[in-house]
Amino acid sequence: MSRASRQIAPHQLPTRRLEALVDGVFAIAITLLVLEISVPIVDSAEASDLVDALIDKWPSYIAYAVTFFIVGAYWINHHRLFFLLRGVDHTFLILNILCLMAIAIIPFPNAVVAEYLRDPALRGAAAALYGVAMLVLALLFNATWWYAHLRGLFRKDVDPAKIRKVLRSYAVGPVVFALGIALSGWAPVAVLIVFFLLPVGYLFEGPVGQIDEGYLTPGE
Amino acid sequence: MSRASRQIAPHQLPTRRLEALVDGVFAIAITLLVLEISVPIVDSAEASDLVDALIDKWPSYIAYAVTFFIVGAYWINHHRLFFLLRGVDHTFLILNILCLMAIAIIPFPNAVVAEYLRDPALRGAAAALYGVAMLVLALLFNATWWYAHLRGLFRKDVDPAKIRKVLRSYAVGPVVFALGIALSGWAPVAVLIVFFLLPVGYLFEGPVGQIDEGYLTPGE
Amino acid sequence: MSRASRQIAPHQLPTRRLEALVDGVFAIAITLLVLEISVPIVDSAEASDLVDALIDKWPSYIAYAVTFFIVGAYWINHHRLFFLLRGVDHTFLILNILCLMAIAIIPFPNAVVAEYLRDPALRGAAAALYGVAMLVLALLFNATWWYAHLRGLFRKDVDPAKIRKVLRSYAVGPVVFALGIALSGWAPVAVLIVFFLLPVGYLFEGPVGQIDEGYLTPGE
Amino acid sequence: MSRASRQIAPHQLPTRRLEALVDGVFAIAITLLVLEISVPIVDSAEASDLVDALIDKWPSYIAYAVTFFIVGAYWINHHRLFFLLRGVDHTFLILNILCLMAIAIIPFPNAVVAEYLRDPALRGAAAALYGVAMLVLALLFNATWWYAHLRGLFRKDVDPAKIRKVLRSYAVGPVVFALGIALSGWAPVAVLIVFFLLPVGYLFEGPVGQIDEGYLTPGE
Repeated sequence: MSRASRQIAPHQLPTRRLEALVDGVFAIAITLLVLEISVPIVDSAEASDLVDALIDKWPSYIAYAVTFFIVGAYWINHHRLFFLLRGVDHTFLILNILCLMAIAIIPFPNAVVAEYLRDPALRGAAAALYGVAMLVLALLFNATWWYAHLRGLFRKDVDPAKIRKVLRSYAVGPVVFALGIALSGWAPVAVLIVFFLLPVGYLFEGPVGQIDEGYLTPGE
Repeated sequence: MSRASRQIAPHQLPTRRLEALVDGVFAIAITLLVLEISVPIVDSAEASDLVDALIDKWPSYIAYAVTFFIVGAYWINHHRLFFLLRGVDHTFLILNILCLMAIAIIPFPNAVVAEYLRDPALRGAAAALYGVAMLVLALLFNATWWYAHLRGLFRKDVDPAKIRKVLRSYAVGPVVFALGIALSGWAPVAVLIVFFLLPVGYLFEGPVGQIDEGYLTPGE
Repeated sequence: MSRASRQIAPHQLPTRRLEALVDGVFAIAITLLVLEISVPIVDSAEASDLVDALIDKWPSYIAYAVTFFIVGAYWINHHRLFFLLRGVDHTFLILNILCLMAIAIIPFPNAVVAEYLRDPALRGAAAALYGVAMLVLALLFNATWWYAHLRGLFRKDVDPAKIRKVLRSYAVGPVVFALGIALSGWAPVAVLIVFFLLPVGYLFEGPVGQIDEGYLTPGE
Repeated sequence: MSRASRQIAPHQLPTRRLEALVDGVFAIAITLLVLEISVPIVDSAEASDLVDALIDKWPSYIAYAVTFFIVGAYWINHHRLFFLLRGVDHTFLILNILCLMAIAIIPFPNAVVAEYLRDPALRGAAAALYGVAMLVLALLFNATWWYAHLRGLFRKDVDPAKIRKVLRSYAVGPVVFALGIALSGWAPVAVLIVFFLLPVGYLFEGPVGQIDEGYLTPGE
């Protein structure tokens, strides 16, 4: 497909099957996070030892909840923008495959953070890896949706100015993750907290809400 | 989206993609349960030794069946209520992500129960962990559907009084799980049996059936 | 829902979401089979040693292919019968959850067979376990579709006599699996081959084909 | 279904559920790739040791990205051809099950390549295994779509000459993979690079694009 045909209406495939692949990969990636939480092996006759061993796994629980919520937030944002598309083209499919590649690898940095969160000497490196994975994901997410916007894949009844405003706000992500990687050696815990708050912020206060009226249909 | 706009018809997204994510996470969570059942390694020339080793894994089989059925029962209840929705809003999406977080972690407490079910000293702690996971899930499930009810996300042709009756009956869940956690140190096996019977009861006798006429469409 | 309302048209839910759960569990169960095939660890400078180690895993490859094909055959049969339904009711949902429970556990007996296929003393016990899993699945599959037939869940334009003929032919499954379990101690390899051929037979020659004209729509 | 009925319009099932199974298996197979990337265990007080251990896993990252992209490319090609179908028949279902069998096993050769990529003596054997898996997949993919073409499963408004041209171009795949297997002992790295470039080439320059005008619908 010619990349120079920006003026003409883009060739489009129905979005249904890409949705199925995207939803499948998101669902599997977040569900695989649980495999990182291993059963503690306790050889004791004291129930309190098993309780202690279970509590001792708190970094795994925190990493599970945080990563699950971050991936969930990406799914919601993807869902909301995807809903505004009138179709997809070949390059958009490829960009989505690349996004999914970045989503599906997240159980790995998640497991590394869970493993080293308690180790003051090593958690900086774990936070940096987590930041790199999030930076790559954020850059691909930005590229995907800017492409959709510039190629005119969004529905005609959606205000382009609102789309641009949403997409511009997404530029915060890569900047924060790049800064977080740079600072992960000094303040890994603070960096991880910021990594978590960023998508949460998008969820509750983000500019996506500003186009709600444009694409949410009233009941019945 | 303003949280104060309770009077107006809620902004709604189509429910199809949330269904896809929900069904995906449920399907994966129940299918991952099998990974807990490891192949016994027998170094023997006696077939009876392998048979014994396979029988010896009965706690894994019981945990698999019970947890599979509990998650399946949640899926059926989710399915039946979801079917009555006319749309979803942003907060409902987030509540569903939190429910999925509680569903997707279930293979972990399931594996802990399978590991320690035979150990009289430790199975109490395992039952307590299972109860905590179930309590969190039950609370989130209650919160999600009360939110849907209070925000008017259910279809207009469904009697609100029936919905309220169903939702009120769900309050039994958190109470039973909280009691179960408190009693898990004394009677872990009894507690686990009650944990299992609760969703089974909802399945066969639960008040969900009372709105059947309201939302089940006749054949053809 | 009253179980005595057999005379009236059954209350029905749309089949779409049950399809999603069923397809999800089938897809995951067959894809998890690959996790049983572990990477051989070779500490050698001879490429032929790695080749030998890879070839040495032939029981895993055979078990993967056979089990994948059996589960795939069940999916096709489920797919074809499901396509003839006009709706599902509550009990049918529960029967399907039980069928999925029997599908999702299959990676376990598959792994046991792969582990012990080369061991003449132990493969009988492994074949018996495989047979038990298949017997339970076959019984649940029979119960599910007889229930659908007896409750009138099939479409009115499908000849009930043809449905009955198909369902009666499924009775072969439990008989063969029960015999296979009884004979697994004497001729485990022959038993496993028969277990494999049974669903293949259904695929290519089975009576399902006899209702093809009744439910397959012509092109366009 | 009679195999001799090639002259008549093929009996067809709706494609929706096969799509669901296909998308599910693709989504799971690519997401399971991450399980091969294990968390490095570092027992040190130096952050640089963890960084080194993480960098040291580069073969896993490369294998993940390459295999993810290859499977993604297959999904896109499957998606584009599937979109042109007017229905499926029984044999096509079976051919698709066989294709899925070849897709779902890919995490295994991927893990073998990741394990042995750095070992000059053994990576040839790993590349050969990868080539065998890709060869089987390519042959099944070719067989599936030639079957669809010869049985007239494609939509009447799609030019058969264009379909044939696309399918003929797919013959390159098996030839390249067969040559790659033969050469894997001499130049494993070059072979793996070619294995990667092949589907990428299909993606960006492949003849699939030549039927784009025939099946892509204009916007709105």
